[in-house]
This record gives sequence, structure tokens and C-alpha cells, in this order.
Amino acid sequence: MAKKKKKRVKKVAPAAPKSKAKVKFSQRDRKTLESLRTLADGVVKMAGRSRAPYIEIPSRSLSNVKYNRSKRFIEMGGGCNRRELFNLSQAKSYMQTMLVGCGCKQLIDEGKTTSIRGLYYLLKHTIEGTKEETFDEQSDCDPVIEDVEVALNALREELHLYAQTKGVLVGDITVVDKGDEIDCARMGSGGYAIPSIVEPDVVQFKDSEAKFILHVEKDTVWQRFNEDKFWREHNCLLTHGGGQPPRGVRRLLNRLHRELKLPVYCLLDNDPWGYYIYSVIKQGSINLAFESQRMAIPDAKFMGLRSKDYERCALSPSVTIKLNDNDIKRAKQIAKYPWFEKKKAWQKEIDLMLKNGFKLEVEALINKGISYVTEDYVPTRLADRDFLD
Amino acid sequence: MAKKKKKRVKKVAPAAPKSKAKVKFSQRDRKTLESLRTLADGVVKMAGRSRAPYIEIPSRSLSNVKYNRSKRFIEMGGGCNRRELFNLSQAKSYMQTMLVGCGCKQLIDEGKTTSIRGLYYLLKHTIEGTKEETFDEQSDCDPVIEDVEVALNALREELHLYAQTKGVLVGDITVVDKGDEIDCARMGSGGYAIPSIVEPDVVQFKDSEAKFILHVEKDTVWQRFNEDKFWREHNCLLTHGGGQPPRGVRRLLNRLHRELKLPVYCLLDNDPWGYYIYSVIKQGSINLAFESQRMAIPDAKFMGLRSKDYERCALSPSVTIKLNDNDIKRAKQIAKYPWFEKKKAWQKEIDLMLKNGFKLEVEALINKGISYVTEDYVPTRLADRDFLD
Repeated sequence: MAKKKKKRVKKVAPAAPKSKAKVKFSQRDRKTLESLRTLADGVVKMAGRSRAPYIEIPSRSLSNVKYNRSKRFIEMGGGCNRRELFNLSQAKSYMQTMLVGCGCKQLIDEGKTTSIRGLYYLLKHTIEGTKEETFDEQSDCDPVIEDVEVALNALREELHLYAQTKGVLVGDITVVDKGDEIDCARMGSGGYAIPSIVEPDVVQFKDSEAKFILHVEKDTVWQRFNEDKFWREHNCLLTHGGGQPPRGVRRLLNRLHRELKLPVYCLLDNDPWGYYIYSVIKQGSINLAFESQRMAIPDAKFMGLRSKDYERCALSPSVTIKLNDNDIKRAKQIAKYPWFEKKKAWQKEIDLMLKNGFKLEVEALINKGISYVTEDYVPTRLADRDFLD
Repeated sequence: MAKKKKKRVKKVAPAAPKSKAKVKFSQRDRKTLESLRTLADGVVKMAGRSRAPYIEIPSRSLSNVKYNRSKRFIEMGGGCNRRELFNLSQAKSYMQTMLVGCGCKQLIDEGKTTSIRGLYYLLKHTIEGTKEETFDEQSDCDPVIEDVEVALNALREELHLYAQTKGVLVGDITVVDKGDEIDCARMGSGGYAIPSIVEPDVVQFKDSEAKFILHVEKDTVWQRFNEDKFWREHNCLLTHGGGQPPRGVRRLLNRLHRELKLPVYCLLDNDPWGYYIYSVIKQGSINLAFESQRMAIPDAKFMGLRSKDYERCALSPSVTIKLNDNDIKRAKQIAKYPWFEKKKAWQKEIDLMLKNGFKLEVEALINKGISYVTEDYVPTRLADRDFLD
């Protein structure tokens, strides 16, 4: 065996770097490169005219975020901050902004992607002739990445940055991912691990007869639905996002919803965290309001669990979980979100949870039978069109 | 659209429960059912002879765990605890043990699986005529599940219980998962989401020409290797376990290693956590020593990062992370593990990390170039056969 191993290893001698290989830019890449060039050209122009260089960055402060009632998602207002090179308190962040732009350009130029941690490490160094680091911590770099996103109106994925992946998809659809055709109806007990970057030049959809998407909160619940082949019987796609869905999952849901006209039903826990996950899927995230346009799904529906399910489904008191102080505080905050506060059904839902004094997890339905959730609960909700909007 | 939706919904009226469908037991299921029956029969027999019923449960205490130097993994000793029904301090846990056995039998009988949280909810109820709950918290149920595992010498997966899933596989192999053939060389930028239960009756391997497995710690690093199609160039399988790999990933690695004779190389961070992950993959987990036989991979190799890489790869001081007190404490503990303490190379490795005073993440290698890790670092380690054992 040892000998065999040695022989094999000969094959894996260091390969010539492929970084120099000619990179074929997608249309998206050309657009992002153009934005990055415009950003850099601005500096050169200002310097050429002997003006103090600055960049305009749309403000990501809460006061510049608002709920757009006609578009039905959270968006940024018009507020902008100026970041100046010749301003002692802004010079470092000016440098960092340019550095992030430069790093993203390098990634696109080489046709590669990395994580935000990867970009931080890529750009981190001691500034020549000083003891100053470009970034001390990743937490110094992350907000600058967001600045570049908003300044360029480019999704993070368009800057060739990926996030953690933790969602999975199955169902009647063929996903074409970098040219590979993946039949998501033939994935056994596993599934297609949803990548972080699912922009149209990377991921395309084919041959789907699915009629809707069932998005569940957790992988453990997803496994129940997959094992019962719920998606085959109900002709749907089945996804989970491992709790709060990562960007790739939200973007994929958004694209499936818009391009294939699939309604999105969310099966989440009856607790403030479940409400919040729904809120982010539907209206977008408050912290990253600039992405809502390409992430939010204002037509998504909340399929449950509902506060009234305790009585309606005759659940055992044994499976209830007492609300803690933080739950109560969060529930009250969520009830005041502009997109919930004028919806009677949502106010009633949250009020009843507070009155109940307990929360309910989707997993608790197993107390009624192993497949109660797939054979009874969700089919009944679908048949009755009993969702919260 | 609204009308169209209504029409569709007609199709999804509640299906007749399929729970009653005839379940075809696998050989594994028959074996587990037999063990469960033997457990229950013991109680009946003792009761029939008017003896106080008890069950023998191998002790999972640390004192009953030892490192087997010839098998090179952690295993349990022969210590047993008796759990008696007619013993005030043991009656409840006796009942819980039987209840868990009963729940697992129900799962197998119905041909279904669930999570440990699912089993907790399935079994939780108020005991008739009392105010006592069968289990107050999931944390009351989890150790009882482990008791049943050791008492029956059955992996949790054989009891039809699944864990969280978070690992992904790509490479030149066709995985047959519940009859679906998944070509893991054609998964685009995503991958095959490794399920929790990968026992041979669920998952089989086909058509692999791969020569080894590269297991990396994190999905973000995995994405770099997948994007560079490292696995294609080096003819390997590429997996990650999202940090500490979940049971399904460890079991899959174990099966691939044993059945396809594939060496397993682990690319982990140069920190105590990375060492620990390696230790669990190689020797098994101390807490779940009874699983080592089917989980541990005593021949797995630690491919890096290494403490000497700071100098060897001429890394920038900017990418080092200072060890904190807990890191130092953990490193010293790990150095004393019986499977590390007599290995000079490991002692040197850990000593040097402590001397360096810093740790290094795999992601930090990007500072040397976006694909340095895939085009230089790992190929060099492979070519030089430079691993820790």
C-alpha cells in the first residue's frame, strides 16, 4: 500500500499556476468592473484637477432605511456620506474602501471568488513605513465591503465574494450550475447544497414543473419532508436555510419566485425568531436594506406554525416552550415593524402568542404522529389557503 | 394568477396517511429490531419470574474510556451500570430508557427517521395520573439515547435517528443514495449535501477512480478548492464538515476510507480546535467512544496548517492570530492525549505553536495569492508526503 501511495503522489506535483489563464468575463463581471473603474477614475480625475479626492457612499444608517409600501420591501433612502482622503478621521476608511475595491477587482480579474474572511486576509498587511495594519480585525473590513456594495450598487456576489453556505434544495427542477446539470429530483436522502453565488451567469433553471416552493426553517424538518417525498406528491421544490437563510438561499428563492413564478410558502417556528426569518425573506433585512431589491420576496407567505395551532391541532401542553423575557421583548418589537403593524392578522398572531405565553416548534408536531406535519398539517394549510401574508 | 393558484391547490388535498404502507426492512433494520426485542423480552422474562426488572448499560463515564493502542482508536471498557425499575433513584431513567427503545422501534416499524429533537417531542408527554413529564428537556432525553445506543451496540443512525447535516462532497464518484445515482463530479459550484444517515443500505458508492480524500475544515475553504477544481486535477474526493464534522460526514469518510481504500488527508487550521477536529476524525470522540469502531479513521493524516508554516511559507505577521488563554490551555490538554503524547512530531508541532504564540487559519494563505492553497500549499505537501500522523 505504501508503495502504491508513493506512485500516486508523483502525479500530484505542483501544477503551474493557472491564475494567468485567460479569464472570460460574464456580462455581470463586465458591469462590476466598469463600476470599479469608475470609482477609481473618479479619484484620478479629482487628483488631476488638484481637488481633494472623496467618494460618496450611500448611508447605511437606520435613519436612511425605510419601508416602501408600494414595492413592499425595505429600501435605502437617498442619504449619502462623503468619505475624504484629506480628512484625518476619514483617511483610513478612504484607504480601506479603495483597498476593498482593488481586492474585488483582483478577484474578478482572476475569475475567482472568496469569502469575506478570505478578502480580509487577502488585503491585510502592514502599511509600508508604518506599524499600522490595513485592517486590524475582520470586523474592520466587513462594513467597508458593505460600503463598496452600496457605492457600486453591486450585490456582494457580484464583487466575487461568497458567504457561508448552509441551505439545501430538492424537487422537480434541473439546476444548471457552472454548466453541470443537476437533477434535483434525484438526490436520494441528500440534496443540492445551495452555493453562495447563484447569479444567473452561474446558475440557471431548467425543466421544472414545480408549482410552488416550500421553504422550511431547519434541516431536521427538511429531512422529514424529503424522506416522505412531500415534494414529489405535492409537486413543489423543498428548501431549507439552516435557520436564518444565508444570502445564497434568499437569492435563489427570489430568482425561483420571479423567474418561474413560484409562490413561496415558509414553514417556520411559532416564535419571534420564526417571525423574524419570515420578515427577512419577505421584506429584506434592515441591516442590508440595499439588497432587498434582489433578495426580498414581498409575496412570500407564512404557512405556520401559528399561535392558534395549540388549540386547532389539539397539541399537548407537554410540547409547549415557555416564552422568556427576550422572546416577549422581541415579539413586541416585531409587532411594530411597519410591514406587520397594520396587518390585523399578524397583530392577532403575535398577540395570541404573547397571551399563550409559550412558543411552538415545527418539530413538536411529531407528537401527533411521525409524518403528521407532511401528511396532515401542511396539506391542510395548502388546501385551505390558510397562510399569513 | 390567483385563480391559477386555486386550481393548483385542489391537487394538494390531504393525502391518505402513508404510514400504514408496508415497510420493507433492511438487514440492518432487522438486526436493530432484534436487539430492541431482546431488550424488551428481558423485562418480560424477569417480570414473569417475579424478579425485579433491570437493564445493563455499558458505562459511558470517562473512567470507562480508553485508548486502544493496537486498534488505534478510543474505545469503551467493560464497565456496566445496572438500571433498576424498583429503585427510586433509577425508576425514571429506567422508564425513559424503555421509552426511547419504544420510540426507535416505532420509527423503524414505520420506515422513518427523525432527529434527536424529534424523538424527544415524539416521546414527551405527561405520565397518566401524575403531573410528571416523561422528559422535561431535550437534555434529559439525549443521554438516554446514548444509553440505548451502547446497550444495543447500535449506531444512532441504526436507531433511525439523524443528526444535523452540514457537510458537502464533490469529486469523481457516483453516490447511490436511496437508489438515486448522483454524479459528484458534476455538481457545479454546489455539491452533494452529505446526509446524516449514510449506512450501506442507504448509500452505496460506484465508479470512483479517486485516489484519496481531501477533507477541509470549513465550507469557505472547500469553495476555494471546488472553484479551482482541485479534485479533478488531483483525482481526489473533496469534503468539508462545517467545522467539527457531524456524524454523517465522519461515517461517510470512514466508509470511503475502508471500502474504497482511500487515504484521508485533513486540511485544518493551525490551532487547538483544528488539532481537536483531527483527533476526533482519527481516534474517535471521547464522549461517544462506543462509536469509534465505525467512525474513527486511525490512518487519517494531518496535512496542515503547521506551526512551521509561518516561516516555511514566509507568511506575513499580519495574518497571525494571538493565542488566548483558552487556546493555550486546550493545546496543553491535547498534547497530553494518549495518541499524541508519544508522538514526537506532534509534541514538536504543539510546542512550536505555543512558542509562536499565535495560530494560523487556512484562509490566511490567501495572503500569498488567491489560489496559493490549492496550487502550491497542498500540492507541495502531497508531493513531499509531508503530513503529521
